Amino acid sequence: MELDTSPLATPFPDMPPVDGVTLRIAQAGYKDWGRCDITYAELAEGTAVAGVFTQNVCCSSEVELGREQAKAGRARALIVNAGNSNAFTGFRGREAVEQIMAQVAAHAGCPQSEVFVSSTGVIGVPLPKDKAQAGVETVLTAAPCHWEDAAATIGTTDTFAKGAMARAVVDGKTVTLCAIIKGSGMIAPDMATMLGYIFTDAAVEPAFLQKCLSASNIKTFSCITVDSDTSTSDTVLAFATGKAGNAPLTSAQSAGADAFCAALDDVCRQLSHLVVRDGEGASKFIAVSVTGATSDDSARRIGLAVANSPLVKTAIAGEDANWGRVVMAVGKAGEPADRDKLSIGFGGFWAARHGLPLEGYDEAPVAQHLKGSDVSIEVDIGLGGGTATVWTCDLTHGYISINADYRS
Amino acid sequence: MELDTSPLATPFPDMPPVDGVTLRIAQAGYKDWGRCDITYAELAEGTAVAGVFTQNVCCSSEVELGREQAKAGRARALIVNAGNSNAFTGFRGREAVEQIMAQVAAHAGCPQSEVFVSSTGVIGVPLPKDKAQAGVETVLTAAPCHWEDAAATIGTTDTFAKGAMARAVVDGKTVTLCAIIKGSGMIAPDMATMLGYIFTDAAVEPAFLQKCLSASNIKTFSCITVDSDTSTSDTVLAFATGKAGNAPLTSAQSAGADAFCAALDDVCRQLSHLVVRDGEGASKFIAVSVTGATSDDSARRIGLAVANSPLVKTAIAGEDANWGRVVMAVGKAGEPADRDKLSIGFGGFWAARHGLPLEGYDEAPVAQHLKGSDVSIEVDIGLGGGTATVWTCDLTHGYISINADYRS
Repeated sequence: MELDTSPLATPFPDMPPVDGVTLRIAQAGYKDWGRCDITYAELAEGTAVAGVFTQNVCCSSEVELGREQAKAGRARALIVNAGNSNAFTGFRGREAVEQIMAQVAAHAGCPQSEVFVSSTGVIGVPLPKDKAQAGVETVLTAAPCHWEDAAATIGTTDTFAKGAMARAVVDGKTVTLCAIIKGSGMIAPDMATMLGYIFTDAAVEPAFLQKCLSASNIKTFSCITVDSDTSTSDTVLAFATGKAGNAPLTSAQSAGADAFCAALDDVCRQLSHLVVRDGEGASKFIAVSVTGATSDDSARRIGLAVANSPLVKTAIAGEDANWGRVVMAVGKAGEPADRDKLSIGFGGFWAARHGLPLEGYDEAPVAQHLKGSDVSIEVDIGLGGGTATVWTCDLTHGYISINADYRS
Repeated sequence: MELDTSPLATPFPDMPPVDGVTLRIAQAGYKDWGRCDITYAELAEGTAVAGVFTQNVCCSSEVELGREQAKAGRARALIVNAGNSNAFTGFRGREAVEQIMAQVAAHAGCPQSEVFVSSTGVIGVPLPKDKAQAGVETVLTAAPCHWEDAAATIGTTDTFAKGAMARAVVDGKTVTLCAIIKGSGMIAPDMATMLGYIFTDAAVEPAFLQKCLSASNIKTFSCITVDSDTSTSDTVLAFATGKAGNAPLTSAQSAGADAFCAALDDVCRQLSHLVVRDGEGASKFIAVSVTGATSDDSARRIGLAVANSPLVKTAIAGEDANWGRVVMAVGKAGEPADRDKLSIGFGGFWAARHGLPLEGYDEAPVAQHLKGSDVSIEVDIGLGGGTATVWTCDLTHGYISINADYRS
């Protein structure tokens, strides 16, 4: 099945090299496709790493290992396999990952624990060791490539390559953050695994890098949803090579820490939006903004309940300002809410205020807003100061076609 | 939009009258449709009542009032309005309900608190008081009708009338339980409200009736899901007229209590399945059986995570034995599970055992099973003795068409 490029796709940005990072791609042949499917990011000595991983308890060996490795904070290499997720493959899957780690470590002259591996694709089939070995051997010495090549190679059924960049001035040095991600655009039996990698030449101590990444994650990757389903392999890793020569960032009090965190937030937000823009069958990008909740976390949960509601998502697909379905979704979120204090709007226009349809409500500007490809839903809970924004896409016939009409 | 009858529909059963219950229907004209839309169940003096209600915090006035009234345990009348849910209508909605309660109470010669009212249909529009008053006036003295007439009249966009019955011998008397329900088959801007009513001539003390209904509910209505969305008006009421003349059931130790509870379970299970069989766009009825969980409640939550997963539901629609998606759904349930102890099957055939694809797995019988209209998914967690069965339907183009393609 060939997927059309998402109507919400955006062009790949112009992204400069990041000092201390060399990208290489090759064809391991994990699937019978004439394309590169193994990516190698070679990282300078001393590179710090931080990671956030799926909370799915049935996670892959790659996730189990990566979570442990990230705690030590150092990385020299990243290998990304596309076409086989190696999930639900027991000890055989783990052996395949460890083989890759050993092979790359020998080449890079680093401990095995500094080699990170991700895999995405078919599940239930152990990563073939022979293909992995030959693929790794080829990729280790392949010619360096550009961000867009790597972004395309980590993709599976993504319909466009996804990248983001930002810059910040830290300790008088301009540091660069370049990042690539793959997301949904999923086809059976894959599971819309999100794999994201952020590379920066800033010098950042691992513990602080983890703190920054976790903080960005809660506002970005944890605030997107395509269909409420959670992959067993979701992974985001941040690598800081330190080549920019700034005094290492060690805490929020370090000079330039604010600027670095803002740039990291920016990149994570861009990446998370790109995943939504390639959601299965997506025809509209939806931002759900929640205000007036009892806490930010409560606001985020309410936003996710709205963003995950099939009835809300189909209403938006149908360009229907169906605020009743938003009320329903708020009410089922399991968070504090009071029907008679609730206000719902679309595109900045209130449709219902304080539990009642708006007096003299004019649907025309709302209907106009819903015709666009970028839609916003505003929810004011009216109880407190908690706010959050959650991003999702609509639920269309395209989602059903991708996920039901084609056998694996 | 005319909806085709669900391919999973079953014929309305042959249901006898229940002593102490008289049903009447009339046309209030809540919508511009040439059909009856108000139902009145007249109940004998001394009728006990119990209820279970939506947990959506943005519930309707009907639910708020009914929940309070049910605590007193006595009922003399039920009015069900179809075409207007009266939800999210503030004080005006509440006034309309209280007007109906007063009008019916005056006619029946009972306290207002013994008149139960349910409404389903459009939300955000207060129930029109004039139409309600005229409709109630007509229905109070309309000719008695049969179960199927009442079942059709409480429906909105249901594609078939839904009823169930069971009998039990209690204290030497044969008692009858007859029940009707409306469910999904939802059309914008309604919200798939489930309204169910069980009538029995058994004599049951209100507190014990509530205990029985709550126990049945957790195994039946709480174990079905169409799309994870929760209506603001869901209500199930059980009425016991006592006309069968048995010594009133007061506790699980009363003679015949077991038989009565089993019959109530049976009726609730039948009703809940009927709702799933009329799920929006449903083409397959799916039973998800979970064993080996750490508790029954944990098993139910895991079952619901599987049953609510769009990826699982689309896989079944596509007749694809995609056990990887089931693994994913188990893993995201937030309940104890161990990837390497998990087994997944379809139609009684294991596809994966203890975290690995089954050796020599033969997909042929599974593929045959998935071609049928009634499908089962088996999940063994391998950790404990907790079990549950959850029922749902598949996710098809029909769901999208009903919910997105037609404007409200």
